[in-house]
Amino acid sequence: MNLRLLLAATATKRASAFGARRSLATAAGFANEPTSPSIVTDSVPGPISKQLSAEIGKWQEDRAHWFAVDYEKSAGNWIADADGNVLLDVFAQIASIAVGYNHPEILKLARSDEFITAAINRPALGNFPPAKWTSWVESGLGSVRPQGLHNIFTAMCGSCANENAFKAAFMAYTARQRGSDAEFTPEELKSCMKNEAPGSPDLAILSFTSAFHGRLFGSLSSTRSKEIHKLGIPAFKNWPAVPWPAVKYPLSEYSRENNAAEQQTLAEVEAVIVDRKKNGGGEIAAVIVEPIASEGGDQHASNTFFKGLRDITARHGVFFIVDEVQTGVAATGKFWAHEYWGLDSPPDFVTFSKKMQAAGFYHKLETRPNLPYRSFGTWLGQPTAILQARAIIDIIRDESLLSNVQSVGAHIFSSLSALSAKYPAHIRSLRGEGKGTFIAFDAKDAPTRDILLGKLRAKGVNVGGCGTAAIRLRPMLVFQQHHADIFLGKLEEVLNDM
Amino acid sequence: MNLRLLLAATATKRASAFGARRSLATAAGFANEPTSPSIVTDSVPGPISKQLSAEIGKWQEDRAHWFAVDYEKSAGNWIADADGNVLLDVFAQIASIAVGYNHPEILKLARSDEFITAAINRPALGNFPPAKWTSWVESGLGSVRPQGLHNIFTAMCGSCANENAFKAAFMAYTARQRGSDAEFTPEELKSCMKNEAPGSPDLAILSFTSAFHGRLFGSLSSTRSKEIHKLGIPAFKNWPAVPWPAVKYPLSEYSRENNAAEQQTLAEVEAVIVDRKKNGGGEIAAVIVEPIASEGGDQHASNTFFKGLRDITARHGVFFIVDEVQTGVAATGKFWAHEYWGLDSPPDFVTFSKKMQAAGFYHKLETRPNLPYRSFGTWLGQPTAILQARAIIDIIRDESLLSNVQSVGAHIFSSLSALSAKYPAHIRSLRGEGKGTFIAFDAKDAPTRDILLGKLRAKGVNVGGCGTAAIRLRPMLVFQQHHADIFLGKLEEVLNDM
Repeated sequence: MNLRLLLAATATKRASAFGARRSLATAAGFANEPTSPSIVTDSVPGPISKQLSAEIGKWQEDRAHWFAVDYEKSAGNWIADADGNVLLDVFAQIASIAVGYNHPEILKLARSDEFITAAINRPALGNFPPAKWTSWVESGLGSVRPQGLHNIFTAMCGSCANENAFKAAFMAYTARQRGSDAEFTPEELKSCMKNEAPGSPDLAILSFTSAFHGRLFGSLSSTRSKEIHKLGIPAFKNWPAVPWPAVKYPLSEYSRENNAAEQQTLAEVEAVIVDRKKNGGGEIAAVIVEPIASEGGDQHASNTFFKGLRDITARHGVFFIVDEVQTGVAATGKFWAHEYWGLDSPPDFVTFSKKMQAAGFYHKLETRPNLPYRSFGTWLGQPTAILQARAIIDIIRDESLLSNVQSVGAHIFSSLSALSAKYPAHIRSLRGEGKGTFIAFDAKDAPTRDILLGKLRAKGVNVGGCGTAAIRLRPMLVFQQHHADIFLGKLEEVLNDM
Repeated sequence: MNLRLLLAATATKRASAFGARRSLATAAGFANEPTSPSIVTDSVPGPISKQLSAEIGKWQEDRAHWFAVDYEKSAGNWIADADGNVLLDVFAQIASIAVGYNHPEILKLARSDEFITAAINRPALGNFPPAKWTSWVESGLGSVRPQGLHNIFTAMCGSCANENAFKAAFMAYTARQRGSDAEFTPEELKSCMKNEAPGSPDLAILSFTSAFHGRLFGSLSSTRSKEIHKLGIPAFKNWPAVPWPAVKYPLSEYSRENNAAEQQTLAEVEAVIVDRKKNGGGEIAAVIVEPIASEGGDQHASNTFFKGLRDITARHGVFFIVDEVQTGVAATGKFWAHEYWGLDSPPDFVTFSKKMQAAGFYHKLETRPNLPYRSFGTWLGQPTAILQARAIIDIIRDESLLSNVQSVGAHIFSSLSALSAKYPAHIRSLRGEGKGTFIAFDAKDAPTRDILLGKLRAKGVNVGGCGTAAIRLRPMLVFQQHHADIFLGKLEEVLNDM
């Protein structure tokens, strides 16, 4: 709660690895952050927000709007709406703001000649890279490579990142089958132009129930979060989903039952891989998994489970894709959530987007296609996003945000545990212990969850849901204990009212 | 060639429609544009470019690089490479730079508080739109709506634009089938989570051979440009491609033969639609077509052909998607290439990206899904791109770039016609007459085309290919007669050498 101390903390440039922590989180605060929510309208959204949404509704979907935002007036962890309300933001643009609104270092970047030149001369990166491309990437994205993954593919968004990882996995899988230096056969060349095998091979991605990997046609085929995401859209019929293990929380308390459920799921994954190899119907080229299935309701599993997945995929020559679009970039208290697993050999792909601002994936040389123009596109990402990623990574280092996330997360978790004991009907299956601020719990049911979120918003705290009845905390990395205490206080007020 | 006059021309703000032309193109020049290419290395790419590519190659695909670029030093129609070469750019980042490198008005925009705030606070547009969202879009993208299409969906790139248009078409098609207000059945809700019909319906997009609509899994399934784009990637098997009419050029000279070919193609399109409705195998929810099949080799067809497509699709309740990712934003001498067709009723979707910097599609209210969150994503586009689109549209108006493109295009076309008579072996099937600077011709074969492009580059003119053996001109909209004359002069030098 010592705001003054935190605000005074000096941000020191550090070249050292993230692993080296300071004993005290030195997250630099925002000089102009409010100290409490300010709600000036009878309800949120207020009348101006409603009017702006109605105007948008004349030419674009507006029914998913929460409120219209004054981004200029937003600061740090606080989001200002068009009516003059100021809310503590524990949702952060669907988990996509890393270091706070209008961070002074990001502002400095945006005013730099380097950024401006990049912004106004958007290159076709695959043909005409900027002379500084390696320097920009290596000093940013390159400095947070997951161990063992030296290659970096840049793309436009999380869905694009996953789809391009799928493409790379498919191409590498067929290369393994045919011998990577083999020429394409006339049959392959001809059939691919008709969308038919062998040129367009009958391969599949295996994912899990409650997974969310995006909304384009490939990524959506692997997404199984909610009906509303999938209804009416054709999908690849032979891409299977294996049921996510039905674990209970806290994980540590139910480790024996959970382990049985996880082993069951692992056995099913292996059975599908083996069956498809033997009986056809679409061999599994890759398995994709989120470290925490986020949109699908913050579904966790043990490190043993993920190690098991890595083992099974490696054993059967299936690529292993870790989707860190939502879990990546420090939110769980490690830069990449999969660092918790302690894998013996790295995943084949780690995809990212959201908080990174830049999107894409890390991978191994083996999954670079044998010819250029197989993985290609006009833009292939965006230099300004790469520069923002670099600045964000610098800030995470300079402000020791990993340790901040760890300590604030621990504080939130223990406080919610206490609240859960007091309001067991409303805080159920609390989860995310030891995973930074990546915390969630279930409300009684979906309508109650929505009421709860509405009441929190009316009190000036912006929180999001996920899955069926879950409330997910997705604060920025600069969320500090005093912010957490505001959230916890308002939550208790709301629970008292229920 | 009157450079001084052009440079002196005052850019006057005009609120009038694009249709009203000035008698004289008043395209404002760039004060700092070079007057001729400058090649200081023995070959392009030079040694520094090669070294930079090799460095990139350590962590990312580099085999499609042409050369590394110094974007800060590039100006207007001139691209400066890392070795100090300055080339006339007739390729413009794969047709994606509209108004020249470092345009002073775009620079001004990038330095504005409005742009900077948008750049550093990237919103989840579907939940938390900026208060100025309608104003930004209406004053830019909204001012160039294709007639009859009031709704605007914003996305990340051309592939994403097409994929989201497909999704909207599929959802609207099933809505028509089931009655748009009908509740989803339990069977639909259950089956979609398994990627099975009826929830994930067995519907298809019809496209044409040589079409390019993107490289993600849905868009790639409709792409039929080249094997290298498709090899090794699973595709939707039942999405059909009808052969593009085998027209001859000049279109006007062969109108009778071309008409027969086009009618044959139209009959095939209708036959597939009818057959699928009757016999199953995937009803056609939408037909997608480029006004000029660009990546596939600049394949044209007559206005009558496109009118026929609109008629057939309308008659059978199939949506009609016009992919203007490459043809849009004034390159053909109209803001949208499909304006040339003189349709009686508008297309259902017009997609855009590239020169617009922003991506997405225009559509009708009918194709907005019945529920929110069916077409959704975290970012749903990017406010900075929307602001750039607005500035580009303003510049097109202010500098009368439509009439510039028309007159410069006519000059290039007639000059190439004359060159074609002189070098008939090297300039074949010249096409794009009356379509602004959107001009192409075929070289003798693919190797000769590549030699020709290499020799042009060595002389300081950067030109791209497409299709099998085509050379495509994709200059920026600020390409003027004196730029064209440099290109034409160097081309003649090269042809003399061949």
